[in-house]
Amino acid sequence: MLSARHIIEMSDLSTDDISLILDTAESFKEVNERRIKKLPTLRGRTVVNLFLEPSTRTRTSFEIAAKRLSADAINFSASTSATVKGESLADTAETLSAMACDLVIIRHKYAGSPRMLARHMDARIINGGDGMHEHPTQALLDLYVMREKLGHLEGLAVGIVGDIAHSRVAGSLIRALRMVGATPIVIASPTLLPSRPDVLGAEVAVSLDDVLPDLDVAYLLRVQMERAEGMPFPGVREYATLFGMNERRLARMKHDAIVMHPGPMNRGVEITSGVADSLRSLVLDQVNAGVAVRMAAMYLLLGGDASGSAA
Amino acid sequence: MLSARHIIEMSDLSTDDISLILDTAESFKEVNERRIKKLPTLRGRTVVNLFLEPSTRTRTSFEIAAKRLSADAINFSASTSATVKGESLADTAETLSAMACDLVIIRHKYAGSPRMLARHMDARIINGGDGMHEHPTQALLDLYVMREKLGHLEGLAVGIVGDIAHSRVAGSLIRALRMVGATPIVIASPTLLPSRPDVLGAEVAVSLDDVLPDLDVAYLLRVQMERAEGMPFPGVREYATLFGMNERRLARMKHDAIVMHPGPMNRGVEITSGVADSLRSLVLDQVNAGVAVRMAAMYLLLGGDASGSAA
Amino acid sequence: MLSARHIIEMSDLSTDDISLILDTAESFKEVNERRIKKLPTLRGRTVVNLFLEPSTRTRTSFEIAAKRLSADAINFSASTSATVKGESLADTAETLSAMACDLVIIRHKYAGSPRMLARHMDARIINGGDGMHEHPTQALLDLYVMREKLGHLEGLAVGIVGDIAHSRVAGSLIRALRMVGATPIVIASPTLLPSRPDVLGAEVAVSLDDVLPDLDVAYLLRVQMERAEGMPFPGVREYATLFGMNERRLARMKHDAIVMHPGPMNRGVEITSGVADSLRSLVLDQVNAGVAVRMAAMYLLLGGDASGSAA
Repeated sequence: MLSARHIIEMSDLSTDDISLILDTAESFKEVNERRIKKLPTLRGRTVVNLFLEPSTRTRTSFEIAAKRLSADAINFSASTSATVKGESLADTAETLSAMACDLVIIRHKYAGSPRMLARHMDARIINGGDGMHEHPTQALLDLYVMREKLGHLEGLAVGIVGDIAHSRVAGSLIRALRMVGATPIVIASPTLLPSRPDVLGAEVAVSLDDVLPDLDVAYLLRVQMERAEGMPFPGVREYATLFGMNERRLARMKHDAIVMHPGPMNRGVEITSGVADSLRSLVLDQVNAGVAVRMAAMYLLLGGDASGSAA
Repeated sequence: MLSARHIIEMSDLSTDDISLILDTAESFKEVNERRIKKLPTLRGRTVVNLFLEPSTRTRTSFEIAAKRLSADAINFSASTSATVKGESLADTAETLSAMACDLVIIRHKYAGSPRMLARHMDARIINGGDGMHEHPTQALLDLYVMREKLGHLEGLAVGIVGDIAHSRVAGSLIRALRMVGATPIVIASPTLLPSRPDVLGAEVAVSLDDVLPDLDVAYLLRVQMERAEGMPFPGVREYATLFGMNERRLARMKHDAIVMHPGPMNRGVEITSGVADSLRSLVLDQVNAGVAVRMAAMYLLLGGDASGSAA
Repeated sequence: MLSARHIIEMSDLSTDDISLILDTAESFKEVNERRIKKLPTLRGRTVVNLFLEPSTRTRTSFEIAAKRLSADAINFSASTSATVKGESLADTAETLSAMACDLVIIRHKYAGSPRMLARHMDARIINGGDGMHEHPTQALLDLYVMREKLGHLEGLAVGIVGDIAHSRVAGSLIRALRMVGATPIVIASPTLLPSRPDVLGAEVAVSLDDVLPDLDVAYLLRVQMERAEGMPFPGVREYATLFGMNERRLARMKHDAIVMHPGPMNRGVEITSGVADSLRSLVLDQVNAGVAVRMAAMYLLLGGDASGSAA
């Protein structure tokens, strides 16, 4: 049993919750390798994808997860929901609650929106990314892949490279790594760090090259090209020079170190194609684990039922 | 058995049809309170949501209703269907008919579109709102809530407040109330009334405060803020002063009178937050009843099957 | 068993494959006439509609086909997938593959996109239209209708009228007709033909009226009104005069000749309403066959399973 009622921030979860989610995801990963990828577990439960920021991968990952568990999946998206924009999020929450929705996955540009939703609904909430705050299922799937490939989580040195200050992925991952006893090291120029990096709870390095040989995982954040205008660094080229993962840098890492990226990648910016497509890159393992981890999160939050266990 | 082939206007329904829909909705409402909200009733039937005006709540309500009855639900929306805009609605209708769709819910900016659709299809049609004409499932769910909360419909005095001239919700509700023996009273300034208010079949009042103590239901129409530019009244503030429901006005109503609103609400305009969130407000009961009433409409139009009765 | 792994171009299919698809579609067409239009065949398989050009009919046809076979159908559309636009199609392909999608239907403005997708995925691919290249399921459903209505395909004289140079429908249909032993005749002014019409593998005629009496099928291409600005002909009126099908022209055709159009029709341009709505027009038969042919294509590509045969 999960101790958490919602998965909004990593701090909603206990260390046991994390283990339970990762273990449960393991059996769902097996389901996803079958020809018939379908369990009756969440039959008759209504799952809403409330994605108020454009998204493809994450929404699709959640939608596939919901459908493979036989839930009724309903999509809201910013582009089709003129009304949602007009009314307050609290009213949207109460409306979905009145329709007897069981689980809402919300992506929203404002940090704190998922918590607000939770206050106005009976349903369980999964935060699918809120502003620059958290994106906990991304961190969970990242842990899943690290554990699977490196055999353990405790003691791992994980370098998180890029725009730490504005990244919800970094926000959740730093917290997640600390919870499982790994060491997060943020690697960024001062302009990409929050004003008080000490509160992150991570070690801070300004040079990727300096820490490279010590890392078990190089986790490259996506450069938000669409926000490039206001980017806190001179340009894409300089970014690649300072923080981009390339073959030369990969060669300087431990022989069993791995490279991760939450996707979608800007090839040639934060990662070269050579690295992205190498065996050391686990980007597609992350996508694959994402469906299983989200199935596990949904299953554990909604309790499943006796007839539909994953095993 | 429903006598109506389609639910396009209230006049498609007999008084017996209305009773049948409300009674059937009662058993579906129970289904929606279960953990497993799913019936096999419409398995293998294809239900299309043809929403050519942006909508979230109504489309979602219909989509959830369809899925809980196990229908295959297909969404068309204005934003994704460049083609639908180009071709005539008649051709769209014939196309959906050729694809063997069983039921189409249509929302369209032009009054009469659903009738036109019906002429070109074998499928059953539910009008999800056509221009300023009708929105019959909204009126049916409103009746459902009034009957449930006040115990009966006959003789109820229902004040409908706001922009009567441009409201399809008012259009259907006035007709529905008359059919069940209730008394609709429209409350609006002359600029918010049609040029010949006598054809409405409702009593007309210009002052909300005058009729307030006589009402069993105060039904507040949504101010279409998005059309505010051309609004037939001076401003939002004056509207709130003249026609907004607030605590002071609520106190002047009968002790068991209720407040209703089709949603989404403009808090501070047609209703204060204090009233909206009070026990006297049945806004969320309306949303909740909406799913059950739409399940009933779909079930009765498509006949269901022996194995999938709601009981 | 289908010899083809994907259906991207007509040349992916053998003549036997075509027969198998058409025969299989016949049994699915029967399913679509039942009250309960649902088979368990593709339960637990994930089908993605990756429509990166706006589309309603084709996407809906595929979505209905997938759902009637009990597949989990996921929609991507250009309007909601900001990310897909940013990342390369190869990365999108690998992402969907990592999510264990079984079948992707892709519509894309660039010719060759489906082949590229196939190179980066384990999934089966159906080309739902790529640029001016091919749209093979349209050609297959066209063959289905011709065979059903005229009793055979070999030896049929099929006039394809309109903007041959820019039509993916014409591209696939010409190839398909040749494969089954029919004779494609393209009918267009030189500006609507490719620069080397001889490579089409079709007979070429510049006057519709000249060849009309010899045709078994008049297949009218859609005038792409939305691209009208750069149209290679003077105007809509002249087009109708030279190449539009009307009652007068229909009267000059063989008594059992048929008229076809891939839809959506521009009534009054490439076809008059009189002809479109006549018994000689098989436009709606094409739409109807479309769902069955796509069910057949999906079923045969994914292998179905023992318990879910169409028979």
